[in-house]
Amino acid sequence: MLVCTGFAAPDAKSPLAPWSFTRRDVGAFDVEIDILFCGVCHSDLHYARNEWQFTVYPAVPGHEIVGRVRSVGKDVTKYKTGDLVGVGCLVDSCRTCPSCREGLEQYCDAGMQGGTYGGTDKVTGEPTRGGYADKIVVDENYVLRIPENLDPAAAAPLLCAGITLYSPLRHWGAGPSKKVGIIGLGGLGHMGVKLAHAMGAETVLFTTSPSKVADGKKLGAHDVVISKHPEEMARHTNSFDLIIDTVSATHDLSPYFALLKRDATMVQVGAPEKPLPIAVFPLLLKRASFAGSAIGGIAETQEMLDFCDAHGITADIEMIPIQKINEAYERMLKSDVKYRFCIDMASLKG
Amino acid sequence: MLVCTGFAAPDAKSPLAPWSFTRRDVGAFDVEIDILFCGVCHSDLHYARNEWQFTVYPAVPGHEIVGRVRSVGKDVTKYKTGDLVGVGCLVDSCRTCPSCREGLEQYCDAGMQGGTYGGTDKVTGEPTRGGYADKIVVDENYVLRIPENLDPAAAAPLLCAGITLYSPLRHWGAGPSKKVGIIGLGGLGHMGVKLAHAMGAETVLFTTSPSKVADGKKLGAHDVVISKHPEEMARHTNSFDLIIDTVSATHDLSPYFALLKRDATMVQVGAPEKPLPIAVFPLLLKRASFAGSAIGGIAETQEMLDFCDAHGITADIEMIPIQKINEAYERMLKSDVKYRFCIDMASLKG
Repeated sequence: MLVCTGFAAPDAKSPLAPWSFTRRDVGAFDVEIDILFCGVCHSDLHYARNEWQFTVYPAVPGHEIVGRVRSVGKDVTKYKTGDLVGVGCLVDSCRTCPSCREGLEQYCDAGMQGGTYGGTDKVTGEPTRGGYADKIVVDENYVLRIPENLDPAAAAPLLCAGITLYSPLRHWGAGPSKKVGIIGLGGLGHMGVKLAHAMGAETVLFTTSPSKVADGKKLGAHDVVISKHPEEMARHTNSFDLIIDTVSATHDLSPYFALLKRDATMVQVGAPEKPLPIAVFPLLLKRASFAGSAIGGIAETQEMLDFCDAHGITADIEMIPIQKINEAYERMLKSDVKYRFCIDMASLKG
Repeated sequence: MLVCTGFAAPDAKSPLAPWSFTRRDVGAFDVEIDILFCGVCHSDLHYARNEWQFTVYPAVPGHEIVGRVRSVGKDVTKYKTGDLVGVGCLVDSCRTCPSCREGLEQYCDAGMQGGTYGGTDKVTGEPTRGGYADKIVVDENYVLRIPENLDPAAAAPLLCAGITLYSPLRHWGAGPSKKVGIIGLGGLGHMGVKLAHAMGAETVLFTTSPSKVADGKKLGAHDVVISKHPEEMARHTNSFDLIIDTVSATHDLSPYFALLKRDATMVQVGAPEKPLPIAVFPLLLKRASFAGSAIGGIAETQEMLDFCDAHGITADIEMIPIQKINEAYERMLKSDVKYRFCIDMASLKG
């Protein structure tokens, strides 16, 4: 077994603290990665605090991992020592169901057994442990290549926040002559604005905070709408092809349905705990859809990274040492971050 | 003005009763139709009782109209005296918005101003009045041709119930190798079962009534699931490409989302008054959609009628004289009809 050091939540109530643990040895098809950076996703906090009720403790979160290959198994062909690589939300999947065979591993029939954390290691049977650690061992098929031109720390959040927006933007056809709305300017939303803009879509940011108007425009939004102001909303009636809602808190979506065109789609990428009340008439009257989307498959994640390379896109990050992770969680809960915390893993040795 | 006789609701609380009224004279592009039959749609009742809060009284419902052309205006080219024709939910639309230009008049940007009842006659400025009457005057572009091989009474419900199911079945690709669910066996649902079956889809009916199993199979369902029985529902987990919900009463849709495949769609064609609580996780985990669909455009309605002709499909009706319309409404509220009331308009002279 490979001995690792990292930070773990010992239980749902306690702060994360240093922890030593083991991962499987490097198998024939495995890549061993020295972790350089790990983005801090809201899911990390949900998992650490058992808010989804499946956490196994001690729990090591982290699924926006960038590092360099330290060693590879004897049958690995895709990567070599020294390569800059990434690991996102998936380190495995069933590989046989229709979704896996189509490269949509995120919708694997077996569920999220292959999650980077919260899943089960197929070799050891142990719970999978995430990227708040010095190293990780991952099957080469679930490792991504990080373009060397991208800042590796700022690229880390692409592996969850980036792909979570890229996938629905692509799936629902964002591009030139399309009008795309992004609700919420946080870790997810700021990636949505950058990506939709880079895809050539007319991009509109919806926010409740007048203080975010300037930032939204700087990130690439052609217009920023204060969603609490009905007259600003009304300017966009019946005009959107796609609106992506990144807000996890329960909120009223009705005003947004009025902004959709016929045959348009509202996509939820945040996951509110409680069911959302959806009025049916607005859907009926324009054949509109309310859909969900979860991260992306491995091939699409690579495509997204290459797209970001071509367009010079990374996340806006605030770097923290791992010792500040508990404070970062509290600040994240207050949306006090522009727009993603990223852990500098060198701090582990500090 | 053209003097007509029919039945109208004098106000929201009183029963429908005989009423004489006028329609516009037959214009250059108009078709005057002697009404033979009119189906009884649940919308008729909503409108008669002002449940949508836009009824103008006296109110003449009815938008499943079949009759014979009595006369045509001087510039009419599509129909001639004696033709068997139909009129559905639309007698006009703005004709200029993108939806109208694409033949999707039901999603006209101007809303339902051209409704067969509840709209506004562009010539007279009067409220439009529906098919519970001896005759109607309609622009030839909003008149449908009823195939002579179809029983004209049983064809009447195709004009609303039929197209309401045909349009989403076509739009979301029902056909061979697709599995389609229909929730509810009423006026809409029984058309859904017949049409999905005729399109070649594996068709499953969901009902709460064990008494409807035999009927569902006779109508064309390959399987009938009692939706209250979780073990019957579980047999169909992750298997549907499309489920169409015809139930207007508020009910829990969560069990049905579990039955959708990845990228599948649940379509609402009934319109519950209150917002439906929709859990987001099931949508996220398979990129599923919750959508709405309303009737169909004029061209698609003609396509549906021709499809029904080719497959020998009509509605299952119970014929009533117009004097029994109030009793029929009460029975409809109890789902005590197999599966659509149809008014024999000859009874008006009785």
